[in-house]
Amino acid sequence: MIDTQTVNVESAGLGRSSRRDRTITQVVPVTFTYPVHFTEHLFDPQQTLLRDILTGPEASGGQPPRVLCVVDDGVLAAFPGLEGQIQAYFAAQLDLTLVAPPLTVPGGERCKSDPDVVGRIHEAINAHGIDRHAYVIAVGGGAVLDMVGYAAATAHRGVRLVRVPTTVLSQNDSAVGVKNSVNAFGKKNWLGTFAPPHAVLNDRSFLTTLEDRDWLGGLSEALKVALLKDAAFFEWLEANAVALAARDQEAMDHAVYRCAELHLEHIARSGDPFERGSSRPLDFGHWAAHKLESLSNYELRHGEAVAVGIALDCTYAALSGLLPEADWRRILDVLRTLKLAVSVPELGSGTQDATNPTSVLSGLNEFREHLGGRLTIPLLTGIGQPVEVHEMDHDILRRAIALLEDVQAQASSLPLSSPHTQGVL
Amino acid sequence: MIDTQTVNVESAGLGRSSRRDRTITQVVPVTFTYPVHFTEHLFDPQQTLLRDILTGPEASGGQPPRVLCVVDDGVLAAFPGLEGQIQAYFAAQLDLTLVAPPLTVPGGERCKSDPDVVGRIHEAINAHGIDRHAYVIAVGGGAVLDMVGYAAATAHRGVRLVRVPTTVLSQNDSAVGVKNSVNAFGKKNWLGTFAPPHAVLNDRSFLTTLEDRDWLGGLSEALKVALLKDAAFFEWLEANAVALAARDQEAMDHAVYRCAELHLEHIARSGDPFERGSSRPLDFGHWAAHKLESLSNYELRHGEAVAVGIALDCTYAALSGLLPEADWRRILDVLRTLKLAVSVPELGSGTQDATNPTSVLSGLNEFREHLGGRLTIPLLTGIGQPVEVHEMDHDILRRAIALLEDVQAQASSLPLSSPHTQGVL
Repeated sequence: MIDTQTVNVESAGLGRSSRRDRTITQVVPVTFTYPVHFTEHLFDPQQTLLRDILTGPEASGGQPPRVLCVVDDGVLAAFPGLEGQIQAYFAAQLDLTLVAPPLTVPGGERCKSDPDVVGRIHEAINAHGIDRHAYVIAVGGGAVLDMVGYAAATAHRGVRLVRVPTTVLSQNDSAVGVKNSVNAFGKKNWLGTFAPPHAVLNDRSFLTTLEDRDWLGGLSEALKVALLKDAAFFEWLEANAVALAARDQEAMDHAVYRCAELHLEHIARSGDPFERGSSRPLDFGHWAAHKLESLSNYELRHGEAVAVGIALDCTYAALSGLLPEADWRRILDVLRTLKLAVSVPELGSGTQDATNPTSVLSGLNEFREHLGGRLTIPLLTGIGQPVEVHEMDHDILRRAIALLEDVQAQASSLPLSSPHTQGVL
Repeated sequence: MIDTQTVNVESAGLGRSSRRDRTITQVVPVTFTYPVHFTEHLFDPQQTLLRDILTGPEASGGQPPRVLCVVDDGVLAAFPGLEGQIQAYFAAQLDLTLVAPPLTVPGGERCKSDPDVVGRIHEAINAHGIDRHAYVIAVGGGAVLDMVGYAAATAHRGVRLVRVPTTVLSQNDSAVGVKNSVNAFGKKNWLGTFAPPHAVLNDRSFLTTLEDRDWLGGLSEALKVALLKDAAFFEWLEANAVALAARDQEAMDHAVYRCAELHLEHIARSGDPFERGSSRPLDFGHWAAHKLESLSNYELRHGEAVAVGIALDCTYAALSGLLPEADWRRILDVLRTLKLAVSVPELGSGTQDATNPTSVLSGLNEFREHLGGRLTIPLLTGIGQPVEVHEMDHDILRRAIALLEDVQAQASSLPLSSPHTQGVL
């Protein structure tokens, strides 16, 4: 929902130019509002939440709202009955029109690198008469939601998008925000827009079938936001890491909710929701993560890459004397308990060269370029205590990379509760 | 410039769902601010306006801002020295970096229908490292600005766009607003985003070489906004129509300024700058105009099509008893004095069928579909007095089309000041 508040159109003379020169300063205030629901069994015929949203006060015209559903093929593999369930759900709602059987798209990052997939969604939106008062429902992981979001945001300058994220990572992070994207020129998220969704429906039942690597990987964003913004949430994660690793659903519910809440607060309160400045304080550990994903040809999942990125930037901060060694140990111990690797082959052997595009260090400049302006990297001076730096010492980074290789090698040979980083720094 | 004001993140329980269900209502307020300057000789080395804008407080980082220029080939044909002038301008500015010679693109609607043109601009943005703190300057008519704007808005989720509109129509209407677009599926503006520019620079010196059809055609948007919002401006247009038709530059300056100002006020104050509702009160005469442009394969210019659309909807309103006959005559007389046709072959012979896509009447449903929701058409009950209707009688429309054919046939055989519509209704 969008709402305009106040208004200001000023006319003013301009110095140093012709007598007839004039200037109008245009001020356009816009307020975007959308709900993020935490629920379960969304397509159960008894569950009215989805129907309530699609037929709510935002719906207009006398016609039943038209709905196009796009589903991640990875979700369909885990829930083979989902397609039929979605069709049955809409068949039972006389006041909604599902315009076609759900459209299936490939899941994972590959769907963002193939322009034909966006083209297919545009074709379906056009063929089935989806307009600005109709809905595209995207069901899937973060990559599918990014890609469908881009298609929906550009069709008719934006049709209504309902996101149904199905992974930990998308439920607690990417799907609750205001961005969408696809990849271009071999660069992640090169194309995209800022376009808030109509609604986000976090259905916890989708998490039950996730592979361990996706269940655990998604928690790296929770760890990240805790480290940046909420020491108490970090302590909760520390205390519940064993339960989370053992797939305790109640613990996961809390982790997803609190992480999503912290992200939403950040977007609303940061003062820069559409990222016009040089700083992106939530992208802790992300300069390396994006590069590692790309170097692995997206075999590494985003959450796994973020875990390595967090470990790298924390180790860098500890080696630089910014982050106390005790905090560093606690952070690495949480990562280990969550079974998240702190080093991967793509990180290289510590003989990195920032001018070589196959080196993780080249990710620093790519990160700067995507955002524009001056390089700005968030680091930690303590748990819950971020600071921004504008350069990173490449020698210290190489030492951090070498150190994490040792930590990772030791971790696999130690019992879970051993203080395996003792004396390493 | 974008600015976030206040903030509101609420958590609330949801009725009728599981004990663990929760909702967060996300509220993201964003304020877009940009200047619209009215000036001349923008690329004269003595003119500091462009430099001041590119190096202003919005510029960041220590590096000279990077600038990519994209120029309409129609403008280059009229100003063969422009390319060199732009390069000389930037060569003289040590604190700006023109990353490449100006990129030339085909002018007119054809540039919006060829996806390769957008692709070329994306490639240049990528190859030359244009980021969110760098600039794309688009110099050209409305179609080129729409298309470059779409490329700029989607690259890195939006690099900074400076619009330099070079036609009456783009200076007084399309380039001052918050939209961009390209065509797809044979439909005008099917792809696009809402993305306010960084600045708009209306340089009146570009207007001097316009063909008469573009000089005059652009005035139909001024007439439109006057009829909707400002009876005094209509009277000014009525009193100055002869001077405008004779290419009086001072009269044109006022027409462009006041028309742009009324458009900007509308965008800021309408309460719906991003068009989420069903109503688009500024699109008077546009349902027919968009269809006529498409039927003519874009041989008809947008302004010319809008003139016919205004004539059609005014005649419809007069035949329906909504608009007094005297007002109808005044409006048609202004169009005639501005040498704008009120009927074109694409309008058909009055034997129209709304279900036939080659009929102008099919434009009613296409207009509804683009915006979504209920059909909403602005009509006039008097000069400066709009009203919205939700259906149009096809019989009356056919009569209006036939009547305008007669008016147009008579107009060409009458002296300019004759009351040629006398007794026609």
